[in-house]
Amino acid sequence: MNAVDIENKVKSQALAAKAAARQLRSASTTEKNTALLAMANALGHSSDKILAANAADIAAAKAKGISSALIDRLTLNEERLSAAAHGLREVAALPDPVGATVSMTRRPNGLEVGRIRVPLGVVGIIYEARPNVTVDAAGLCLKAGNAVILRGGSEAFRSNMAIVEAMNAALERTGLPPASVQAIRDTDRAATLALMRQTGLVDVLIPRGGRGLIRTVLENATVPIIETGEGNCHIFVDESAPLDAASRIVLNAKCQRPGVCNAVETLLIHQGIADRFLPAIAASLAERNVHSRGCERSREIVPELEAAQEADWETEYLDLVLAIKVVDSLAEAIDHIDKYGTGHSEAILTNDYNNAREFLEKVDSAAVYVNASTRFTDGHQFGLGAEMGISTQKLHARGPMGLEELTSTKFVIYGSGQTRT
Amino acid sequence: MNAVDIENKVKSQALAAKAAARQLRSASTTEKNTALLAMANALGHSSDKILAANAADIAAAKAKGISSALIDRLTLNEERLSAAAHGLREVAALPDPVGATVSMTRRPNGLEVGRIRVPLGVVGIIYEARPNVTVDAAGLCLKAGNAVILRGGSEAFRSNMAIVEAMNAALERTGLPPASVQAIRDTDRAATLALMRQTGLVDVLIPRGGRGLIRTVLENATVPIIETGEGNCHIFVDESAPLDAASRIVLNAKCQRPGVCNAVETLLIHQGIADRFLPAIAASLAERNVHSRGCERSREIVPELEAAQEADWETEYLDLVLAIKVVDSLAEAIDHIDKYGTGHSEAILTNDYNNAREFLEKVDSAAVYVNASTRFTDGHQFGLGAEMGISTQKLHARGPMGLEELTSTKFVIYGSGQTRT
Repeated sequence: MNAVDIENKVKSQALAAKAAARQLRSASTTEKNTALLAMANALGHSSDKILAANAADIAAAKAKGISSALIDRLTLNEERLSAAAHGLREVAALPDPVGATVSMTRRPNGLEVGRIRVPLGVVGIIYEARPNVTVDAAGLCLKAGNAVILRGGSEAFRSNMAIVEAMNAALERTGLPPASVQAIRDTDRAATLALMRQTGLVDVLIPRGGRGLIRTVLENATVPIIETGEGNCHIFVDESAPLDAASRIVLNAKCQRPGVCNAVETLLIHQGIADRFLPAIAASLAERNVHSRGCERSREIVPELEAAQEADWETEYLDLVLAIKVVDSLAEAIDHIDKYGTGHSEAILTNDYNNAREFLEKVDSAAVYVNASTRFTDGHQFGLGAEMGISTQKLHARGPMGLEELTSTKFVIYGSGQTRT
Repeated sequence: MNAVDIENKVKSQALAAKAAARQLRSASTTEKNTALLAMANALGHSSDKILAANAADIAAAKAKGISSALIDRLTLNEERLSAAAHGLREVAALPDPVGATVSMTRRPNGLEVGRIRVPLGVVGIIYEARPNVTVDAAGLCLKAGNAVILRGGSEAFRSNMAIVEAMNAALERTGLPPASVQAIRDTDRAATLALMRQTGLVDVLIPRGGRGLIRTVLENATVPIIETGEGNCHIFVDESAPLDAASRIVLNAKCQRPGVCNAVETLLIHQGIADRFLPAIAASLAERNVHSRGCERSREIVPELEAAQEADWETEYLDLVLAIKVVDSLAEAIDHIDKYGTGHSEAILTNDYNNAREFLEKVDSAAVYVNASTRFTDGHQFGLGAEMGISTQKLHARGPMGLEELTSTKFVIYGSGQTRT
């Protein structure tokens, strides 16, 4: 197909999504939950087909020499598929965000002005080759009353098609429009670009992925966007930090799952505690195969450290690598975070009340911690019940996005003949 | 200056705004209110200078043959300037939205996870040649703790520079950074384009203006946007509508101030009431110099009506013109609004409980009314205390935007050594 054909196809999917969204807007919680449970069951019934499609994806990815980490993310098996189905059942059990009255006031002229929570409409999502995200995103969008257009990584194309087919059949059986959940049926880049430009049809586009994808979306999209997730996260160990707890937290934030966006990437240490803390933490990190890269002052204390370069302060390693810098003060730590951070998650480890307050106030990130691991930045851990991604922008949603972040509001006004004077 | 010089200048303004925003983030309510009152006083003290600049703008606009309606919007006088200053004092009296704890919960592991209201950071605004908006926008942004970059219509350039100079001096005197309020110092289009592309520096851009401006912004911006206000607003007169009230409301929504976005542009009339309602309302509209353009069925009832063309259903007249269509049913009215509306404000006039509920639920607009004039869609009328514009998008803000819509939230997490398992 040429680019124009691809664009037309994406547009017709967006039109179908908009029509579906119109029906979903008025769907009852019971109808949506019934569909979610049917979708969960359908994944079970179609597991042979889905796993066969996934096996074909994996074979093609291996032939292309894709890294083993990516192959792992791409891989489905009975257990992972039933975990995804279980996720849909959990979403069905969550409260429906739609229809809640957010506020209602009576104006002096007797008008009653309220704000009601409503679906966004049509949500687009561009994501990596992770078939479980296909299931999660479809479930969350449907529960919030939105139609979704899925654009997963091309390596997962066959898997996604099989999953969406199963979910569509379930929607059809339960009476909700199958176009509520659609996948882009073309792996061409032109299809992704077309999705970014469905102004008036797509109400929000959520790009999940690396810096390159985000930049492409910023440059090309005409629809509203929620930017997600680069996480160059920091932990600042203040002078008064209890050292044992600080060690536990730093090791947890770096090592518990290094490949995710809420893992710590730079450790800042107050100069007043560096002599005592740095040798111990450097040794513990080395034991866990973490490559630490230190500033000059930290290398005076622990000469074995590799030398950090300017680029290290900006890097989201997503790996067992940690940049370490000794700072003079809380103010220098905050300045460093302001300069190099991505506004994701930052923590201060301290026993100083004023420093804790200052850090919480002055650090301008989606999640700011006192005395805890940055690894908690997650919809489930924060009690949102679900997660659609982690926003690093300030508009609409900031930090982990749950069901509420997939909704908008509208004003409803009850009058009795009022006119404006 | 060439385009690169202009871009560099805008970028240096954006950098200064970001630095100012960092200071404003921690400014107390008292500091901000003191600055707002000083800004109000400064407008008074500098009124000679501001009015002289405005006179020069008006002379230049007249020489260019600008329409009298636009000249009126551009014009300042002692009264209008002191009204703008009064507006700043009113904003000072409003509650500070920053710092409020939106939610705070304790998780099973003892973490306390809260959401705190914080400033957005740097707000950009592109608007018409209305110098009073310069004052309003600066006041609202400052109260919400944001730095603002103002890009007013070029016809108001001298007025805006004089206003911003006065406000900057007031900021300086009260100890807040003058870069909190900046105007783009170049009328070249390249400056506007540069403002749209300050990713990482500008947190949100609010374009106010016609379809052309919005389209340019959608095509070129890389920063997050809040789209504002084209209003192709509808009133549907249902079969059960009380006719006297319906006439009053329609006349108010069309005639009270036809040039604004919440004025009604299309009147939909249920066929069961058209014979009785249409002749009366058509006569009343004609008396008030409204040009009505009717569908075929309405012209069978009132043959004097001009014939409406397809384009009429899509037009925001902003003038004493009204499109009129007879519809078979509530469903047809909703379909018409869905097809032609801009999602701004729509009203049903009815005494039927179920129809009122159905209209409120199915019409997907920022403001949906029962039995009142659409002219109430306004921050002050809705009780928000202020208005920065009216959003017609669903992300972040929908409908009139007050101070709260100029803020974001951040998660703060109080721990006692928690790590993730």
